[in-house]
This record gives sequence, C-alpha cells and structure tokens, in this order.
Amino acid sequence: MSHSPYRSPSTGRGIRAVCFDTFGTIVDWRTGIVRDVRAFTTAQGLQLDAERFADDWRGLYQPALESVRSGARPFATLDELHSESLLSILDSHNVNPDRFGPGVLRELNRSWHHLPAWPDSIPGLTALRSRYIIGPLSNGNTSLLVNMAKNTGLPWDVIIGSDVTRAYKPSPESYLRTAAFLDLEPGELMLVAAHNEDLDAAQRSGLATAFIPRSTEHGPHQTSDLSPTGAWDIASTSMTDLARQLGVGPP
Amino acid sequence: MSHSPYRSPSTGRGIRAVCFDTFGTIVDWRTGIVRDVRAFTTAQGLQLDAERFADDWRGLYQPALESVRSGARPFATLDELHSESLLSILDSHNVNPDRFGPGVLRELNRSWHHLPAWPDSIPGLTALRSRYIIGPLSNGNTSLLVNMAKNTGLPWDVIIGSDVTRAYKPSPESYLRTAAFLDLEPGELMLVAAHNEDLDAAQRSGLATAFIPRSTEHGPHQTSDLSPTGAWDIASTSMTDLARQLGVGPP
Repeated sequence: MSHSPYRSPSTGRGIRAVCFDTFGTIVDWRTGIVRDVRAFTTAQGLQLDAERFADDWRGLYQPALESVRSGARPFATLDELHSESLLSILDSHNVNPDRFGPGVLRELNRSWHHLPAWPDSIPGLTALRSRYIIGPLSNGNTSLLVNMAKNTGLPWDVIIGSDVTRAYKPSPESYLRTAAFLDLEPGELMLVAAHNEDLDAAQRSGLATAFIPRSTEHGPHQTSDLSPTGAWDIASTSMTDLARQLGVGPP
Repeated sequence: MSHSPYRSPSTGRGIRAVCFDTFGTIVDWRTGIVRDVRAFTTAQGLQLDAERFADDWRGLYQPALESVRSGARPFATLDELHSESLLSILDSHNVNPDRFGPGVLRELNRSWHHLPAWPDSIPGLTALRSRYIIGPLSNGNTSLLVNMAKNTGLPWDVIIGSDVTRAYKPSPESYLRTAAFLDLEPGELMLVAAHNEDLDAAQRSGLATAFIPRSTEHGPHQTSDLSPTGAWDIASTSMTDLARQLGVGPP
C-alpha cells in the first residue's frame, strides 16, 4: 500500500476498502444453480426445467429478504431463506419435498455455496487486493460466503456477512455497519455492483460506488442493469478494468 | 479439500476450521510493541524503558477485558481498551498525555495493528489453508485483525472479530458464537493457542484444541505456558509441526 489510493470524487475521501456485491457481480449464480439443479434432477430421476427452476428460486430472493427488512419476521440467514424458498419452488414444480431425505435438500441448498466466478473476477480481485482491503458486501451469511470463497478461490481479506450486520441490502445499515466494522468512514468504502439499485442505496449512505456490467446474469435475454444509470464514481467494463481505474494492474 | 480432515479424539468430529489465538500465538506482540514504543520515544524526545512500557501496557489487557466480561461496563472494542490503557500507562511513566496531538497517540495505539508474525506462522497457516478454513479467534476487533493481516501477510480465510461475537475470551460465547457464524458444530472447530487457559475454556465449550509453545512471548525470562498442561488433542512444537499433525505439509 505504498502508492496513494483512489480518491472518490463523490465522497472526497481516499478509498481504503473495496467491497463487492457477490451474487451476479462476482459469481454467475444462474449458471451454477442450473448446473446443480440438473445434477439433482438426474440423480433423483425427476423431469424439471432447470433454468426455470433456477430463475423461480432466485425470484423468491427479494420477497424473502423483504420479509426481514420490513420487520414482518425476525432476522433469518440467507441459507434459511433459500431453504424455505426451495421447498416452495419444489412444490410449485409439482415435486413433493417429503420424498427426499433432509440431507438431499440441504445439499441442493448449498449450491449457493459453490457458484462459479465470472472469468475476470479473480484476476481483478487479486490486483485490487495489492492496494485495498477487499471483501464481499453481500446478503449472504458468513458461512455461505466463506464456503464460496474456499470453493471458488475468491481472495477476500475479510468477510462481513449479513448475519454480522443483521441487515439486508439495500437497507442503510447493511452499508454503514460494514464500514463501522472496518473502522472506516462510509466515504472510504467503495461498493462495486452490477445492480444500479444497490449502488443507489450505497451512495445515499455515503459510500463511493462503481458499476460493472454483467449482461448475462439473468441469462441471454437480460434487459436490466445493462449500463450504469446513476452518477457513480466509476463505470467499469470489467473487474480488470476496475482495477486499472483504481490504480492497480496493467494500464 | 480432497483428503479426509483430521478427526479430533476429544470431540469425535472431523475438523473443518482451525482458528488461532493471535496475540502471542501468531504474532510476537512484545517485540512489535517494544519496537514501536522505541520509535515513539525517539521521535518525541522521551526517556522511557520501552520493554517495561510494553509489559505494563499488556499488563492492563486482562483487567480491561475483565471489566467488559464481568458486565461492569458495556462492550468496548479492544482498540478502545488499548487506548484507555495507553493513557494510564503514560501517566504511570510520568508522561503527560496532553502533550501529544490526538493523532500521535492514535498512531501509537495502532502498533497493535502491525505486529510481526513468528517465523513459522505464515508457512504453517499457508499449509493449513489448503485443507481447512482458517481464521483468528482473538480478542482483537475486526478492523485491528484485518489491518494486522494486511500488514503482516496473514492468509486468513475469515476474520470474526470480538466486536462480531461481542464476547471476550475465555467466555464460552467467544468460542460458541465463532462456531455458529461458521455454521459448524463446536467439535468441528479447533482452537490453536500458546495459552493453556484459553485451550481449557475452548475445550469446556466443546472445541478441539492444539497447543503450540511460544516460550519467548513474554521475553527471555518467561515461566508460564512453556508446555501443555491439559489433555489437548494435539501438542505441537511449531506451526509447521501442527500442519503436519493435521495432515497437510511435509511429513
């Protein structure tokens, strides 16, 4: 950390830590879940549309988070929410969850623990780590994010899961408590995300922001988040481009 | 993680994560603090016995932790406790803390963020990381442990600071909440420490245990913790020996 860090125009502060949305931004959750659902259906002798199953499972993600964010229910980890959603999706695909032993569905639920990284993620993170503290800023719980890092080779310096902040994005506490655990001012922390809504909430909480496009996160027909829609500090084209714009890696 | 992990005789479980006491076990706090106190006294034109100053500063560590553990005061981070102790020690060494700008003492307090690793720590941790989740299980707060890891090159997979568990060792919550954040049974988590008291408390909470001697932690005349005094799973001679006994690294 001998060179001066990137200074955020929006916060006026030098950046000390760069944190990343994870599902969609760092890892290709759809490809990973489709792959694991296919393996599950083959092993269990089921007929399921794996792509629709994956999209439906992820489709319950925001409603489940909202039930916690709204205070309608006490905090539950993302593993727990994923598990409840899985039972619901099996039911809607006309598969009786009771036909499986508990270990089978637990294993399928852990598909979220070993998702493939986008090809530029690890090279970009490795470059960024030479100058900045890097970590996820994700709705994932700590154990999910630790297992994902081990399985996928993500070189995080620190993992502050949503079960540590006890808050789900885009609530302000998710961003502010992450900065507080790092003993940083919000403006010294940058959020990198492929989702404009996430960046908007982070910016409102005083964080620096960087957009990266992940135009096939939702499959080949994606229409959302194809480009930056806000006044983010950085609009990058890839994780390695982001590293370059943050002053590390090849020019 | 293709090979089978170490199975703990005392817990009867395969070990998934190996966590480490940090001050004394991973890093040589006394050498680091003496070095930084010497630099401080030179820069400030003071006459101080740096070794006695370091020992006195560390001497307030357990009393400060106990004030939180006992419930006599609300939770405060180790950075905050170190800072209070520093003011007290300056006073007892007849140095008026008011002569310094706040940045000077803040910098001295951050000596605890960049302590030197014992020579075998990083090779041992690197070997262990190939099969186990590794992290500190320390009374340090998250930002202290993150900065130490960056400054010293400690290859942690995860950092769960005492400000995350809101508990100081040797209270049972410090061990049990660390296991819970990792979604592990206590018996799947091993504590490695150079302090028998720490291992005793961890074992009572159901963790697996390993001793490593650090016979100069307290300087050349150390009389405590020179050898294991309990029925720990492993009595190692060094961090690389520990890695070997846990099935990784050269035989």
